Amino acid sequence: MRISMKKLEEFGAAFLIKRGVPEGNARHVSKVVVETEAFLQSTHGLAQFTALAAALGKTIDPEGEPEIVRGKGAVVLIDGSRCMGNLAVKLAKKEAAEMARAQGIGFVAVRNTHWIGALGPHLISIAEEGLLCQVWAQSSTCKDCAPFGGVDACFSTNPIALAFPGDGHPVVADFSTATMSMSAATALKKKGARTATPRFLDRAGEPSDDPSVLDRGGSMMFMGGDEEGHKGYALALFNEALTVLAGGSANNPDTDLYQSFSLMVLDPEAFAGADYYAKEMRRFLAHVKSSRARPGFGAVRLPGERGFQALEECRVRGVPLDGEKCSMLRKLATDHELDFEELGTIPASGNRVDPVVLRGGGGDG
Amino acid sequence: MRISMKKLEEFGAAFLIKRGVPEGNARHVSKVVVETEAFLQSTHGLAQFTALAAALGKTIDPEGEPEIVRGKGAVVLIDGSRCMGNLAVKLAKKEAAEMARAQGIGFVAVRNTHWIGALGPHLISIAEEGLLCQVWAQSSTCKDCAPFGGVDACFSTNPIALAFPGDGHPVVADFSTATMSMSAATALKKKGARTATPRFLDRAGEPSDDPSVLDRGGSMMFMGGDEEGHKGYALALFNEALTVLAGGSANNPDTDLYQSFSLMVLDPEAFAGADYYAKEMRRFLAHVKSSRARPGFGAVRLPGERGFQALEECRVRGVPLDGEKCSMLRKLATDHELDFEELGTIPASGNRVDPVVLRGGGGDG
Repeated sequence: MRISMKKLEEFGAAFLIKRGVPEGNARHVSKVVVETEAFLQSTHGLAQFTALAAALGKTIDPEGEPEIVRGKGAVVLIDGSRCMGNLAVKLAKKEAAEMARAQGIGFVAVRNTHWIGALGPHLISIAEEGLLCQVWAQSSTCKDCAPFGGVDACFSTNPIALAFPGDGHPVVADFSTATMSMSAATALKKKGARTATPRFLDRAGEPSDDPSVLDRGGSMMFMGGDEEGHKGYALALFNEALTVLAGGSANNPDTDLYQSFSLMVLDPEAFAGADYYAKEMRRFLAHVKSSRARPGFGAVRLPGERGFQALEECRVRGVPLDGEKCSMLRKLATDHELDFEELGTIPASGNRVDPVVLRGGGGDG
Repeated sequence: MRISMKKLEEFGAAFLIKRGVPEGNARHVSKVVVETEAFLQSTHGLAQFTALAAALGKTIDPEGEPEIVRGKGAVVLIDGSRCMGNLAVKLAKKEAAEMARAQGIGFVAVRNTHWIGALGPHLISIAEEGLLCQVWAQSSTCKDCAPFGGVDACFSTNPIALAFPGDGHPVVADFSTATMSMSAATALKKKGARTATPRFLDRAGEPSDDPSVLDRGGSMMFMGGDEEGHKGYALALFNEALTVLAGGSANNPDTDLYQSFSLMVLDPEAFAGADYYAKEMRRFLAHVKSSRARPGFGAVRLPGERGFQALEECRVRGVPLDGEKCSMLRKLATDHELDFEELGTIPASGNRVDPVVLRGGGGDG
């Protein structure tokens, strides 16, 4: 089953408005959520609606707006003030890009916000404007990962993302400093699946390929696992340090759950210039893509390449939804007296596009 | 065999002076090289002397000085102008730290420099001043790593390092975005050793645990190997993008060998303040260290912890040198008509410290 992006965005906005979110914010957040789903980051896409449904009016203030605490030179500090995470991201992006244009770089640190979902999709519009960027994120109370060499978990899966202008679409990468995100581990657990090599530690600190150890006092290993986990550990520590820089809470079981993140944006014009950048990047990416593919890999891809292909397909054919996602949306609709069936669908196969669904510009909103 | 840091520094400076390097620069570079060796990064320590001996007067201008090309707001662009890499690092650190104090952040991009050795030791003094920092580096012509999913190598092992103030010593981490540095792979090859899990690809793109495939058209896998190598690949791509930003050459078999790097420095005072930072970081690091150790791991350590222990020991007892390192230094001495034996030694065992060796302040220079 496929549903147009436009319809999903409208549904999400309607749900958020019912929960007290002002219309402009509701529309923005819903658009980000749907684009994330379309960009193939489905563990962090529509799932945000469920997380928002649980938190709005409790840990999230529906009318909460991020506040600039202070700014100096090329940096800004933002307090999320219990706002929806995507609103804090929107403000951070605006501030960081403006500073980058004026100062060569902009760095924004944000504390006390709610889940910001997948990091990568947030960066697309920055890189499309010709800027380079990196983001580091952390959550305050999660007990996902143990320090390298340790048994007791005291880290969230602290993700990183980066994006930069490419040849055509930007290059966009987004990953956890743990062996996988907790959402991905939960999805594996539901299927009863195991990983090809150990990515977890059981409660005694022994490597395991079974995600269900997470429910029995186990933990996630850091990126690189048993042999290279010190690298993921180091990267995760830096995310914690940036949270501390921002005045947020580094991992602490005794505090409230908040997310902190930092965003760096760089402007090539302040360095060797956008023209040099475009020309040399084009040459380099062609050089990378000319590498022959390994057996079992169809082609050498750049990070984000499949995401952009999927996003473009979703803009024409709608977003594919499995039974679980449909149930989730139906429940959200019922709970908020919205009509899910009214959304309309595009057949999952066939090239014929439902004209009703494409009304309004192909679902791009 | 152990030789005092002071003596090694004097020896290195004497060698560099013989090769036409001005005395001040010679003393600075030699000190960095010896501290790197003492900080346990011995593949990137005294080995730099051999690399310098081969390159000075050829690809390195002995009197070369890095030049500031332009600066804007919180960023500076430096051209290495064929200087010794460690001189470019020195200038980049000064500029970035000054901007961080004034603007909250400083970012310096450097192109066209020579090997800067290990990244981590460069960051120690920045973090000891209460600042946070990250560095990204790349070399232009190395064919070390294939893109994830590819066979043909078109990346160097693109390292990253980060450092931030801790409780006592800073936390300092330094690693390759490949499964290991090329120096480490070469050391393994010499021993005829293999890795516990595949970290290489043979010339057909099949995973291998044998570093000798690197001599037969193979390549290094990216950090995370077969399952998570897309993460190391993404990080390595960002290092290339920063090189392009700087006006340097991203990987290109048709260009000359240069190294590029970028340094970001952040000042907590521009965010939530150094007092909050110190207090919250102390709490968090105690929380991390309280995690019980895994079977086979003695204790939970922070990145850089063993390096600082070794550095302190080297300051008292001298730097440990194996037969290979001694031969290397003897050859360097012979080639430059310097007296290696004159360096003096401290016995490798026993607490008695040779007073001659400690003359001049315990080798700390």
